[in-house]
Amino acid sequence: MFKYEMRVRDYECDLQKVVNNSVYQNYLEHARHEFLLANGVDFAELAEKGVNLMVIRVELDFKKPLGSQDDFYVTVEVQKESRIKYAFIQHIYHKEDDRLMVSGKAIGLAVSLQGRPMACPELEGLIATEPV
Amino acid sequence: MFKYEMRVRDYECDLQKVVNNSVYQNYLEHARHEFLLANGVDFAELAEKGVNLMVIRVELDFKKPLGSQDDFYVTVEVQKESRIKYAFIQHIYHKEDDRLMVSGKAIGLAVSLQGRPMACPELEGLIATEPV
Amino acid sequence: MFKYEMRVRDYECDLQKVVNNSVYQNYLEHARHEFLLANGVDFAELAEKGVNLMVIRVELDFKKPLGSQDDFYVTVEVQKESRIKYAFIQHIYHKEDDRLMVSGKAIGLAVSLQGRPMACPELEGLIATEPV
Amino acid sequence: MFKYEMRVRDYECDLQKVVNNSVYQNYLEHARHEFLLANGVDFAELAEKGVNLMVIRVELDFKKPLGSQDDFYVTVEVQKESRIKYAFIQHIYHKEDDRLMVSGKAIGLAVSLQGRPMACPELEGLIATEPV
Repeated sequence: MFKYEMRVRDYECDLQKVVNNSVYQNYLEHARHEFLLANGVDFAELAEKGVNLMVIRVELDFKKPLGSQDDFYVTVEVQKESRIKYAFIQHIYHKEDDRLMVSGKAIGLAVSLQGRPMACPELEGLIATEPV
Repeated sequence: MFKYEMRVRDYECDLQKVVNNSVYQNYLEHARHEFLLANGVDFAELAEKGVNLMVIRVELDFKKPLGSQDDFYVTVEVQKESRIKYAFIQHIYHKEDDRLMVSGKAIGLAVSLQGRPMACPELEGLIATEPV
Repeated sequence: MFKYEMRVRDYECDLQKVVNNSVYQNYLEHARHEFLLANGVDFAELAEKGVNLMVIRVELDFKKPLGSQDDFYVTVEVQKESRIKYAFIQHIYHKEDDRLMVSGKAIGLAVSLQGRPMACPELEGLIATEPV
Repeated sequence: MFKYEMRVRDYECDLQKVVNNSVYQNYLEHARHEFLLANGVDFAELAEKGVNLMVIRVELDFKKPLGSQDDFYVTVEVQKESRIKYAFIQHIYHKEDDRLMVSGKAIGLAVSLQGRPMACPELEGLIATEPV
């Protein structure tokens, strides 16, 4: 199971003194890209070649807020959603006590320069073989 | 129907030359706060008083990407989700031709300083009387 | 004198309940790009053609903080700094009473795809003819 | 000499495929807060108590751009600028070959709830005893 550790930066917190909701999407995206890289799939390099990995749907459940300087980790697993769609199942846990802070699901697919959805063999190898 | 106009700023675009996915959540949040303000509900003032309006779930469908300097508008409608939960139904349309770029749903509720969900009469008045 | 109006968005405020310092650089950049566009220079289009307008130095003086939902405007003027360098002199004023909130200076130049500084006739026409 | 390591996240890169200029201020701020914490000064806790550490001036020289997934580190040193002002001298180096990417200077001071500059013994202990 892929895990990526991060720490809340103060500028990510808002008026309510907790991490702004949109920032969790940043965390999840960064963890996905690290997950892809760790598996030999380079998001920026693919974009350079004209293969854009795009997210078409996101669902986020905010359970508990992260605050200033909290340490946390993000998990990533991939499930196949359809022939060309992949679901990234992601959770954010507080590092101190492993409590669940945010759970998310991002549906992604590969899109050509012309904006056409396309098969992406690079993603095929990432499917979790165990039920997640 | 509440509408709020904005324009893409270049720093909101990423490597893929389109608005980064997490930025749409910024747009939706800002439009919600403008909607609340237009209806006499001040998010920052409530936070000051210890009433935090919190989003507990977000769903976003990315239909088409916005790019550099695009003009767009965000719509906001509120539906009641349960006794204390409110669903903000939001759409982002390109200003040029009114095509749908992103549709979103944010479930929110009011939370006391102690972290307790609470009734929020300020939100009650916002419910759309027409089906959305 | 070029002026561009904006409003603080709540997500731009941080733990201290005022706009985070780095966000002013976003405001200044966006106002510069609007200034360039208003003068027929398209930052994103130039980037597409391999001409990157780059900022090599920034100076910012934070006089007063902007807060939640404040309306403000940004001014932009250009001075020539050297044969290929341009200084964008920018000020952020509160809209309510025109008080100065931030003053900034950004030194920019055009850079080719190979990373070489280059003359940029598009910028030449922007020089303020009056002393600023 | 304080050093703090980070890695570029893809969402921090913009249309020009390099880290957006304003993001370096985020990096510098986060490194400063880590430096303060490492020296027993908690930025968020002080804000809670009504002592806001504020930056009143920033100077940034962008030497080379950081790109997707680059590893880098930020150094922090403090010099006394006046009786109540402190200069944070900061550099960003690429981790691979220690080349200088950005150098910055942030002038800060402590401000009371009433907005008055005040002495801050917590900062006094941070002064580099060696010339920087």
